[in-house]
Amino acid sequence: MSDVMIAADDPILESDFMVEMVRQMRALDSYGVWEGLPTNELLDPFVLTKERKREIPVVGDPDEETLSRVQAFYNAIAVLIEKECGKMAVPMVHLSHEGFGRALITVGKLVVMDRTLRDVHRFGFESASKMKTEADKLLSVAVEIIGEHSDVAGM
Amino acid sequence: MSDVMIAADDPILESDFMVEMVRQMRALDSYGVWEGLPTNELLDPFVLTKERKREIPVVGDPDEETLSRVQAFYNAIAVLIEKECGKMAVPMVHLSHEGFGRALITVGKLVVMDRTLRDVHRFGFESASKMKTEADKLLSVAVEIIGEHSDVAGM
Repeated sequence: MSDVMIAADDPILESDFMVEMVRQMRALDSYGVWEGLPTNELLDPFVLTKERKREIPVVGDPDEETLSRVQAFYNAIAVLIEKECGKMAVPMVHLSHEGFGRALITVGKLVVMDRTLRDVHRFGFESASKMKTEADKLLSVAVEIIGEHSDVAGM
Repeated sequence: MSDVMIAADDPILESDFMVEMVRQMRALDSYGVWEGLPTNELLDPFVLTKERKREIPVVGDPDEETLSRVQAFYNAIAVLIEKECGKMAVPMVHLSHEGFGRALITVGKLVVMDRTLRDVHRFGFESASKMKTEADKLLSVAVEIIGEHSDVAGM
């Protein structure tokens, strides 16, 4: 793997979303393997530049580490939704064979995010900034739906 | 395993739900292993009498066959919901380690069924009749929620 793609002093690391991502990644690290790792390096595997993508086969099964990154990403979004709307948001990532699946976040009886996953073994974002933009988009759509259907979200 | 617990001429086998259960089980049987099996024998493993339950250890990991039965059960309920309300119902069964998990059915952006699963390795019903009662209950609750929130179900 090449250089770290997120600068150690990138202000993006101070955003709510990235702080939560770090928390999620630390939570996954039951054996403390990444304990000494600075946050930019911890989040670096989420960045999949074109060069990095080229190194991954087009077809493949996602490994445990990739799966936990997918889980961490949607967990973090669920946490942000929860903070924003004050109601419990439950993420659910389901993968079938060959990296196809579905990621869902529910609040009450409302589906506030629903995505089809494919090529999960190549999960990643072109840059940290693209990752945050994606998360912000999912968050704002979710919060909007909750506002429109607060009765169902409150069930 | 002991005798078959569903009689070959049990009228319950003609109910919409049981007919759909048979269809689901046949669909799972990619290798045609159960091809010659009559419907009562095909559905027999869903019946977990007290005697049968006693033979299964309290703690255990669900095997592939048990998992496919769980999937078949919730698939069948989703199909019945779909027939009843005319909208697509999507089932999602997610299991973590040791047979814990969550089964969900969504219609549009509405969660119409949401169950916590535990002890999945002991998945089953005391009788065919109890199984159908359970399915009918899930169906009627789902249909009611859809009626109340048809806007969200239509999203």
